[in-house]
Amino acid sequence: MEDNVILCDIGNTSYHFLDGEKTSKLPTADFDPATVDEEVCYISVNPAVDEKLAELPNWHDLRSCIDWQQYYTTMGVDRIMACEAVENGLIIDAGSAITVDIVTNGRFEGGFIYPGLEAMSACYRNISPRLDYSLNFELDLDKMPKNSRDAVSYGVLRTPYSEVIRHNRKIYLTGGDAKALAKIFPEAVVDEQLLFKGMKKLMEKRC
Amino acid sequence: MEDNVILCDIGNTSYHFLDGEKTSKLPTADFDPATVDEEVCYISVNPAVDEKLAELPNWHDLRSCIDWQQYYTTMGVDRIMACEAVENGLIIDAGSAITVDIVTNGRFEGGFIYPGLEAMSACYRNISPRLDYSLNFELDLDKMPKNSRDAVSYGVLRTPYSEVIRHNRKIYLTGGDAKALAKIFPEAVVDEQLLFKGMKKLMEKRC
Repeated sequence: MEDNVILCDIGNTSYHFLDGEKTSKLPTADFDPATVDEEVCYISVNPAVDEKLAELPNWHDLRSCIDWQQYYTTMGVDRIMACEAVENGLIIDAGSAITVDIVTNGRFEGGFIYPGLEAMSACYRNISPRLDYSLNFELDLDKMPKNSRDAVSYGVLRTPYSEVIRHNRKIYLTGGDAKALAKIFPEAVVDEQLLFKGMKKLMEKRC
Repeated sequence: MEDNVILCDIGNTSYHFLDGEKTSKLPTADFDPATVDEEVCYISVNPAVDEKLAELPNWHDLRSCIDWQQYYTTMGVDRIMACEAVENGLIIDAGSAITVDIVTNGRFEGGFIYPGLEAMSACYRNISPRLDYSLNFELDLDKMPKNSRDAVSYGVLRTPYSEVIRHNRKIYLTGGDAKALAKIFPEAVVDEQLLFKGMKKLMEKRC
């Protein structure tokens, strides 16, 4: 595979490209991948996009490069790329879903899936209009809330926070909401290109 | 207030009655409160039902009996009744939303709101059909998951679990999903009449 290949990470809502040093994001709804002439190595968790790409010979799915003995078959390829990028640590990929994975000495130790911040806000809103609050990221996580906005914000943010910190690992943050979550994990390394790094490492190792 | 008054706790989806020793549950969508002739003392977190009840002279809202200095104005009255029932402990009321409140020596110390189990399942389903799993309550909460169903179940159950247990308090469980949550909090006291107990205590004390 050439060095100047374009990388693409396709999620539920967008195509995320890395072309040399340049990144760009395009909504899955609007973008036609057939308009790209260059060679693209991609990962996708979007079944509708998968179907389109299967017919395009210049789009190469990195799924086939994965050592599946290390992971499990229904695990999202985005999570796998994040794990490939990290030697030791806990990775939080905060997109439409938030995935939390632990890697020790380059080996995946397991992980879990939490709804994304927007999905959580919608979830409260759907339960009752009385629970429709914008999240308060300035919330004091060490104090039980005494108002409704903080009671909801604490529910969304403190519950995964309590789970994450008990593992006592170096934290890597990536995904569209990485910067928002960095407010509650100030010690975390924010790396918006973590998945691309994993894709590159995998391509060097196995493709 | 007479001893044989009917108590009613009205949530987002149902009327929950206590008449003497007998409890019953009726969906808010189908039930017409004007069909009740007896005196009823109620609490409600349902604005649509509130409007109906305001016109019925035999339905008495316990909201006016609450010592609001102890709580905050937008706090759900159901949470307040649960707090009134407990002298010391952490109360989990698992309904369409899950509320978690801490009471110390009869005083409310704060609390948070987490989506109900059904709302959480819907939340994952809405993010992606790939995340549509029934929750696994037999999940080993001490092991990071290595399959998708457990990764989702762990996200729903372990995150509030981690937050709840760090408070190291006696746990009271109530609400429609109390029994389901008792699987992950086996040491908890399950009390389906906790809110009614709080209503009774409040009526004795202040009404």
